[in-house]
Amino acid sequence: MTDSTSTAPDEHRDGGHREHRDVDPGDLPAGPLDAADPLASFVGRFLPMGDVVAYLDGNSLGRPVADLPERLDAFLRHDWGTRLIRSWDERWMDLPTSVGDRIGRLLGAAPGQTVVADSTTVLLYKAIRAALDARPDRTELVLDDDQFPTDRFVVEGIAAERGATVRWIRVDADAGVTPELVADVVGPATAVVLVNHVSYRSGHLADLEGIARVVHDAGALLVADLCHSVGVVPTELDAWRVDLAVGCTYKYLNGGPGAPAFLYARADLLGELAPPVQGWMGAADVFAMADGYEPAAGVRRFVSGTPPVVGMLPVQAMLDLLDEAGLDAVRAKSVALTGYALDLVDAWLVPLGVVVGTPRDPAARGSHVTVRHGRMREVVERLWREGVVPDFRNPDGLRIGLSPLSTSFAEVRAGVLAVRRALLDAPA
Amino acid sequence: MTDSTSTAPDEHRDGGHREHRDVDPGDLPAGPLDAADPLASFVGRFLPMGDVVAYLDGNSLGRPVADLPERLDAFLRHDWGTRLIRSWDERWMDLPTSVGDRIGRLLGAAPGQTVVADSTTVLLYKAIRAALDARPDRTELVLDDDQFPTDRFVVEGIAAERGATVRWIRVDADAGVTPELVADVVGPATAVVLVNHVSYRSGHLADLEGIARVVHDAGALLVADLCHSVGVVPTELDAWRVDLAVGCTYKYLNGGPGAPAFLYARADLLGELAPPVQGWMGAADVFAMADGYEPAAGVRRFVSGTPPVVGMLPVQAMLDLLDEAGLDAVRAKSVALTGYALDLVDAWLVPLGVVVGTPRDPAARGSHVTVRHGRMREVVERLWREGVVPDFRNPDGLRIGLSPLSTSFAEVRAGVLAVRRALLDAPA
Repeated sequence: MTDSTSTAPDEHRDGGHREHRDVDPGDLPAGPLDAADPLASFVGRFLPMGDVVAYLDGNSLGRPVADLPERLDAFLRHDWGTRLIRSWDERWMDLPTSVGDRIGRLLGAAPGQTVVADSTTVLLYKAIRAALDARPDRTELVLDDDQFPTDRFVVEGIAAERGATVRWIRVDADAGVTPELVADVVGPATAVVLVNHVSYRSGHLADLEGIARVVHDAGALLVADLCHSVGVVPTELDAWRVDLAVGCTYKYLNGGPGAPAFLYARADLLGELAPPVQGWMGAADVFAMADGYEPAAGVRRFVSGTPPVVGMLPVQAMLDLLDEAGLDAVRAKSVALTGYALDLVDAWLVPLGVVVGTPRDPAARGSHVTVRHGRMREVVERLWREGVVPDFRNPDGLRIGLSPLSTSFAEVRAGVLAVRRALLDAPA
Repeated sequence: MTDSTSTAPDEHRDGGHREHRDVDPGDLPAGPLDAADPLASFVGRFLPMGDVVAYLDGNSLGRPVADLPERLDAFLRHDWGTRLIRSWDERWMDLPTSVGDRIGRLLGAAPGQTVVADSTTVLLYKAIRAALDARPDRTELVLDDDQFPTDRFVVEGIAAERGATVRWIRVDADAGVTPELVADVVGPATAVVLVNHVSYRSGHLADLEGIARVVHDAGALLVADLCHSVGVVPTELDAWRVDLAVGCTYKYLNGGPGAPAFLYARADLLGELAPPVQGWMGAADVFAMADGYEPAAGVRRFVSGTPPVVGMLPVQAMLDLLDEAGLDAVRAKSVALTGYALDLVDAWLVPLGVVVGTPRDPAARGSHVTVRHGRMREVVERLWREGVVPDFRNPDGLRIGLSPLSTSFAEVRAGVLAVRRALLDAPA
């Protein structure tokens, strides 16, 4: 896919691994930042990465916590292997709500409103269906045009299924989704508004509190997608009066590939929300085996099938680390990491034609920085081979995802330098 | 919960652990059966059970395969820990269909028709919704009155959501669900019929081929629930012309608690089936990130969210064992185990008032034997404490679930003897 190696200047041909000449080894050093980082020791509490120099994609897939092999071994040999079916009674049955409550603490959600289950997509389906059913006299579903594809697909599918209309919020490239933009679109026919807390593309951080106010003023319900903020951006769902929220656990909660998702439903709304996929594990009495479905009183009604116990193990290890570090400290490091990344990008990439797609105001961004250039697809392919791992998003975005507990400032520096060299077609 | 220890006869009071006097140690011996069992060596290929004497609940939760600790460790350290996000490209993306095809081989399904995702409940929802949508001029959903609760809840939920009518097949206590009973209920308004291949309660094995014929004669579609047959009863979904099927992987496929489920959709029907929960992982081009949902051409369209990679690891270990043993040999041992269990029950439990709820014709049953008695709830509670682990199903059923690769004849004998002693209130 790369077609430009012949344009590499001579200076890059005489040896592969020394520092590239046009960047001084002392430029924008990471050392002092790592030395001053109060969370620096957490970087060692994840499994080693082998020959990976810089992992900059914790916003797609968080790294495994270091004690997971021991935890999984104990689970296999004891909980599953010898307690066997009895573990459902002894420890597994409450996991959807007990792990849910732990995630809820990161979201500013009092206990009893958060549950772990299914995938993000399936929980988005449940949340939006339940919200739409709770506004039966309304016909419009509203979402922004910068949504992750699965959010759009779910909404469009429900609209087709229910004869609802989809209306789009036109996102401002500089400001993201704002309460004002939402206010322009919602109205008396709006049933549900879906917004992302942090945009997967630009990293814009939305004002959920302001948006919730606008949505409620219109008599509609707000569903927030927290995939790119949970575990890294402090959130106050209860205080902000968000109605429902959904997020994944495999990004900043390090739950592993395809780990189950979570759903939050505001306690005083729960009674109005009928679970769209009725299943035995969301019934009031799970083992009654009786006729007729009666939903559980609490948020557990959003559980359908048997809880994914194995899939919920890794996230519990990360929740332990987050509790230990504290979410405010994690956010402070996230702001420092993204700020440092932007400094490096300004110094080393912008002169090469790279465009920054992420807000410079730390209060307006999540924990990834997106930089755009027409050659980013090939750049990312090359970097992956070299052990520098950001990710690529169509059509021209390279995302530098910074998971604070597992990422050092030195990694950020090595990563941005590697992007520069790839753009210059210089040796790594 | 037990209230009858004072009625134990004197002979049970003089020491806890010797053989109970009224059963001769030589009665109905297991030794010759285990010695002649060609699959006997597989029993040692699962993780040790600690102090469990007899595990008779592999039909609720299969045991972990012995090499799982090593497999999971390698997964954590290599696939996830060092390949990181790159593993999606290198090995994870195709897991829903590649593991699906492996399960398909156990079902008599050619490749490209089986996918792993979600939970049984969510996949039942998708299968029944898709089938109902494919018969838009019809209004009835038909199921039998012996269904597992989640099956009933899903159907009743969809009926309420879509304004469909639920019609019930009255199951014959002696014959289970038969083509004749189905024929009595289906008609020109029937859209979908849902039946269990093996009844979770009685163990009756349904004639899916005959039922499919009757359902098709009525112009309807058949959805089969294979939870209690997959991995233990050979099935010929393609040849039998079953339309859709769903099953779990945590029973006879030993996928672990809450492991993901699978869905089969007949290839020549797939084009008519619209996925009810549209998600990015079921789209024709997953990473296009473009507008508009276009479903994948194949069965992958039934995937919604990110595939549960961690949750799919254990089942792959069991599929290896099943490939090695061969499903016909597994079925032969299953028939022998259930037959032996019935012999023991007849000799030791029927005289105490226990009623057999499972067919005596091996061709008419799955791999569990259900025995009923008014005191079974307390019996199972006691047995669990003693390391004998069957399960209990309301109102009075004790299920002896026999997973052929992990269960010895000696376990079956120890288990039935323990039930007898519990009913006699004798020491274990």
